[in-house]
Amino acid sequence: MRLITFTQGADPRPGLVLSDTVGLDILAADPMLPDTWHALFSEMDALRRLHDTFAPQAGERAGDGPPQLPLFDLGEAQLLAPVLLPSKIIGVGLNYHDHAAEQNRQPPAQPMLFGKAPSCLQAHDGPIGLTDDLTQVDAEAELAVVIGKPARAVSREEAGEVIAGYTCFNDVTNREAQRGDKQFFRGKSIDTGGPCGPWVVTPDELPPEALGLSIRCLWNDEVMQESSTDQLIFSPHALVEHASRHMTLFPGDVIATGTPAGVGEFRDPPVFLRPGDVVTVEIEGIGRLRNPVVRWA
Amino acid sequence: MRLITFTQGADPRPGLVLSDTVGLDILAADPMLPDTWHALFSEMDALRRLHDTFAPQAGERAGDGPPQLPLFDLGEAQLLAPVLLPSKIIGVGLNYHDHAAEQNRQPPAQPMLFGKAPSCLQAHDGPIGLTDDLTQVDAEAELAVVIGKPARAVSREEAGEVIAGYTCFNDVTNREAQRGDKQFFRGKSIDTGGPCGPWVVTPDELPPEALGLSIRCLWNDEVMQESSTDQLIFSPHALVEHASRHMTLFPGDVIATGTPAGVGEFRDPPVFLRPGDVVTVEIEGIGRLRNPVVRWA
Repeated sequence: MRLITFTQGADPRPGLVLSDTVGLDILAADPMLPDTWHALFSEMDALRRLHDTFAPQAGERAGDGPPQLPLFDLGEAQLLAPVLLPSKIIGVGLNYHDHAAEQNRQPPAQPMLFGKAPSCLQAHDGPIGLTDDLTQVDAEAELAVVIGKPARAVSREEAGEVIAGYTCFNDVTNREAQRGDKQFFRGKSIDTGGPCGPWVVTPDELPPEALGLSIRCLWNDEVMQESSTDQLIFSPHALVEHASRHMTLFPGDVIATGTPAGVGEFRDPPVFLRPGDVVTVEIEGIGRLRNPVVRWA
Repeated sequence: MRLITFTQGADPRPGLVLSDTVGLDILAADPMLPDTWHALFSEMDALRRLHDTFAPQAGERAGDGPPQLPLFDLGEAQLLAPVLLPSKIIGVGLNYHDHAAEQNRQPPAQPMLFGKAPSCLQAHDGPIGLTDDLTQVDAEAELAVVIGKPARAVSREEAGEVIAGYTCFNDVTNREAQRGDKQFFRGKSIDTGGPCGPWVVTPDELPPEALGLSIRCLWNDEVMQESSTDQLIFSPHALVEHASRHMTLFPGDVIATGTPAGVGEFRDPPVFLRPGDVVTVEIEGIGRLRNPVVRWA
């Protein structure tokens, strides 16, 4: 299933993607279900039943006029980040073999975690805003894990049970601040610096741990990063094990698993995002997260 | 005013402290007010009127039996962290002159920010939990700023307008993880590693920017840290200016402004928290935040 958060002008609502053009409004289909993904992640059996009930209608209705609730036209809705207000966004430094190699660095012995402020989350199609002083902002294509159940000291073998799904993430980074503070937090937490989505794909639709998937980052038409999640040094389940040993993971929490080689900073000469650019993060079997870069006052 | 979040077994509720023993249940006094501090910070005039209406009753009723709603007995309620689920907790490294001196380091040219996972917040009186592998956990007494209004690129002169108040914060740190990752996030984000409270004191009750206040950290009866907020290298307003230039601050966000000299790590030999200890952060004019250290399975 593909899990979304959308709005049609009012409050954010949870939904499912049933086809390329049709979504299911979960609360319209079953008003007794909870209204946030944080709680809905515990209701996956009910969501599966809703999905299987309504998916045939989404397929049949091509050309039959606008869909009727609980179905809706995805083109008439605005997607938001699939999860809102997580209790944390955990980033992982240097977690692709090819990204370590381009910096001439050894793979780390254990995952190196850093924090991104949850306030930086941005939706698919939402702008990445650059104020005039942001002249060294880079993009990083990443596979993100979305947590579905509270997880404390979960082993690698159990990690799959607490993962709600996987999504595309752009770990947008102000390199100047990242270098200036040594601590990554300020450079990693700029407003709109956490594009995420367009949806969360449940693990049953992907290979184990979402490994072996091609991952790309495009700046406009240029492929900047092209790798495979097989290049991950620490796998999604290993990251859940490590992080949950140190802090409880809560439903909606995001682990951005790290980025492959090819980021702008390590180009010769370095290149950075400019207003007018469009950045796309593509992960095989998951989707395409696209964000325009705009100038902010 | 002293702003609290409390529970009597059910959902968290916002309240005011009216005296040493009597609280005001804000929603019982005015059910039309919003039910979270994130929204209530915009209603300070209404809260002031409630406070001034009910404070005389709290003073008069000594010995008159249990208080009646909207008043309640503070001893019958459990305090929670004064703000819940902030969009971020921002820490500041090396922000006291005396703390820089004990490390033989120069004061930084600009504030060095790091992130603590919002999931680490803990209440006054709540335990700081140590699992067996946490053998190098340290305490840091800090003055914390609580944001009351959305703030983007706010100048130092305007910063006071976006501050809801000040509270005590214990920036509990797993030194082993802090050193191991270089990035502070993992060591700063352990569960229960963000004691905060007992309440938020509004700025009108404090000197400008809460400067010139004595600040202490006690481990049991021993004074480990003793300084003044005058030792801050970057003042609360300067920190709001700096942070808000890089990321929007939202109501409920916490800036822990840094810790003075005397932390356990820089003792000779270093000392760390052990189960059975009680840590107290005291700030003049604000209050006393006390947390027992317990062994966790």
